[in-house]
Amino acid sequence: MIVKLLRNNGSRFITRQMHSAGTSSKKTSVIRTIGGVVCIGGTTAALAYHWLHRNEVQMAALGSSAKFASVSRYMAEPITSRQVLDANRNDMKSRMEELVMRIQHDFCRSLEAEEHFGKKFFVDRWERKEGGGGITCVLQDGDVFEKAGVNISVVHGNLPKGAIQQMRSRGKQLAEGDLPFFAVGVSAVIHPRNPMIPTIHFNYRYFEVTDSAGQKQWWFGGGTDLTPYYLNESDAKHFHRTLKEACDPHDPAYYPRFKEWCDKYFFIPHRNESRGVGGIFFDDLDGPDAERAFDFVSSCAHSVVPSYLPLVRQHKNDPYGDRHRQWQLLRRGRYVEFNLIYDRGTKFGLYTPGARYESILMSLPLNAKWEYMNVPEKGTEEAAIIEVLQQPKNWLKL
Amino acid sequence: MIVKLLRNNGSRFITRQMHSAGTSSKKTSVIRTIGGVVCIGGTTAALAYHWLHRNEVQMAALGSSAKFASVSRYMAEPITSRQVLDANRNDMKSRMEELVMRIQHDFCRSLEAEEHFGKKFFVDRWERKEGGGGITCVLQDGDVFEKAGVNISVVHGNLPKGAIQQMRSRGKQLAEGDLPFFAVGVSAVIHPRNPMIPTIHFNYRYFEVTDSAGQKQWWFGGGTDLTPYYLNESDAKHFHRTLKEACDPHDPAYYPRFKEWCDKYFFIPHRNESRGVGGIFFDDLDGPDAERAFDFVSSCAHSVVPSYLPLVRQHKNDPYGDRHRQWQLLRRGRYVEFNLIYDRGTKFGLYTPGARYESILMSLPLNAKWEYMNVPEKGTEEAAIIEVLQQPKNWLKL
Repeated sequence: MIVKLLRNNGSRFITRQMHSAGTSSKKTSVIRTIGGVVCIGGTTAALAYHWLHRNEVQMAALGSSAKFASVSRYMAEPITSRQVLDANRNDMKSRMEELVMRIQHDFCRSLEAEEHFGKKFFVDRWERKEGGGGITCVLQDGDVFEKAGVNISVVHGNLPKGAIQQMRSRGKQLAEGDLPFFAVGVSAVIHPRNPMIPTIHFNYRYFEVTDSAGQKQWWFGGGTDLTPYYLNESDAKHFHRTLKEACDPHDPAYYPRFKEWCDKYFFIPHRNESRGVGGIFFDDLDGPDAERAFDFVSSCAHSVVPSYLPLVRQHKNDPYGDRHRQWQLLRRGRYVEFNLIYDRGTKFGLYTPGARYESILMSLPLNAKWEYMNVPEKGTEEAAIIEVLQQPKNWLKL
Repeated sequence: MIVKLLRNNGSRFITRQMHSAGTSSKKTSVIRTIGGVVCIGGTTAALAYHWLHRNEVQMAALGSSAKFASVSRYMAEPITSRQVLDANRNDMKSRMEELVMRIQHDFCRSLEAEEHFGKKFFVDRWERKEGGGGITCVLQDGDVFEKAGVNISVVHGNLPKGAIQQMRSRGKQLAEGDLPFFAVGVSAVIHPRNPMIPTIHFNYRYFEVTDSAGQKQWWFGGGTDLTPYYLNESDAKHFHRTLKEACDPHDPAYYPRFKEWCDKYFFIPHRNESRGVGGIFFDDLDGPDAERAFDFVSSCAHSVVPSYLPLVRQHKNDPYGDRHRQWQLLRRGRYVEFNLIYDRGTKFGLYTPGARYESILMSLPLNAKWEYMNVPEKGTEEAAIIEVLQQPKNWLKL
């Protein structure tokens, strides 16, 4: 069943689609209130809102599933039509879109399987008037996951000025004039309920820019990183080992280089501490060739489930008390600080006119806390994690 | 009683002082854990921490209180020594420091008087190696105030590059070379527990810059604004009327101009909604002359208590349910978004090396919440406030 949302935004229309099972009787508490008035970009407009209180996705009846895009393995109908994907099955754009769709599906289903009371992801498929769209999957208020957001987006159009500036400042040689681009990526942040399970974030993306002379530039970016509330060295080692094993077959220099990059990127300068225990992070990867870069990114993306799910399984029933919950909430405040003040993706997204802020801010925790001058007492478990965040460790003792 | 904190930060020392009553037996829960390891600016250093679990301030015994600075009317010993204040009592720097000290004291004591179980402000006096310091007062986990922060700072030194850039972009003519500055200000954010009491923010500040030719520029800035969780028109009218009455005797053009400025400044572009129902906001006020500008700022600062305390008294015992609490937490998430993404003061503060981030982030609520796609149902009280935030009102029908 497809529901269309029409948002009259003064001069433009945004069509959004949501897929939901027609037969499921489960209700979700994801959206508690429905309807209202929404305004975007300075103009107020009435929003006719129809919302389905169901979050199962069944798309067996969508047809032509034997072709390129096997829909039952996705969370929703792909953003690029299956005909186009099928006709361009060897194009990197199609291959990457298919990869992120599968990663989103596999990851969401793996997480759902850990919930004890059958909580499922709410699936929100949206389209962008300027070109492309996305599929935002959110599981909120589960018994294992307090808030889990897994988003894919497939966006094209002309590069906004801000993006051109940012890319040039990173050293990209970009011609003057209109620069048509294509970007596809998956990104996720999982905030579990049990403070003994770390938060995970990952993002894998592919970018193409073509100048007026038809010159094409492409690159991949991405990474996976872990933010524990309490230090568990064997968890951190398992996580890093899994990432290293994903990297090594492609280039033994990748893991150490991208591990260091991750430590540098996920850093909160005003607190002089890292967001978490790191992982890998890279950008502007355009070698050794497109094929091998894609293989590498594919390995990384496929390593997310084995890097993280064992930690969820091991700790989801760990006992904890209010002390641990309060600490988790304070640390989630730090997560919010990083994402809103420093994260390039979040900042860039929010400053882009017409950005879908709900999909960007999906990364924020359900609950967070700020206390004045909370400094853990020396020798406590809370002080132990801070110590590691202030002095990144080499988990695999390379 | 004065406790000195010595923070060895590699190449520099920061001395912090805290004043606390030697006789009080009340304990505060402001700081739950003590000690630990802190690192600033890239170097890790051990921090010897001595903390007093008391938050009453008694400074009757500090002497020479008959002079310029009557200490019993302040929350702590002034940052500029009382001898210096006394010797320069006609200097605008001294007068403004004295004003912000009194405003801080009066406001904190007014709030404390509303607490039912005697909760008091925790007073944290800190000094800045580069020049000056501040007094941060925090009341956390009170029965009426969930988190209330009132900070003054008195800072001098050479203007950092970023500040010079920011000021030039606002149109200030600043000479090249070192620019010694002096800044003094008070700022406060009060997050009450009852969702029927709005959050208030105010900030009043004075700035002096002198170039190498000895040319001095000065200006005032500030404002007071209100963020309700539920719309109460008579509260909003009382608040705006009080501000207007503070402005009008100085210039009848001030209130309408600064009200509009406030609506423009406290705006969350990505959500296309205001942070609250506004108030007044102004910057770079350097006329008609220093004397009259100071009088105006003094009137505004003195209007904070009468603009806000009646709302606290009227609503602090209002009944409310979990629905209202959840909505309050969601709206506090929006407050965090504004402060961390857009607020000039917060951003500028956090990007300044050696900034005292705890005093800057004191404005963040104790608890905040983010839900994916929470849109209030039409016709509800939650939708009513959103409507007002999307279309600023002229509360006094000028």
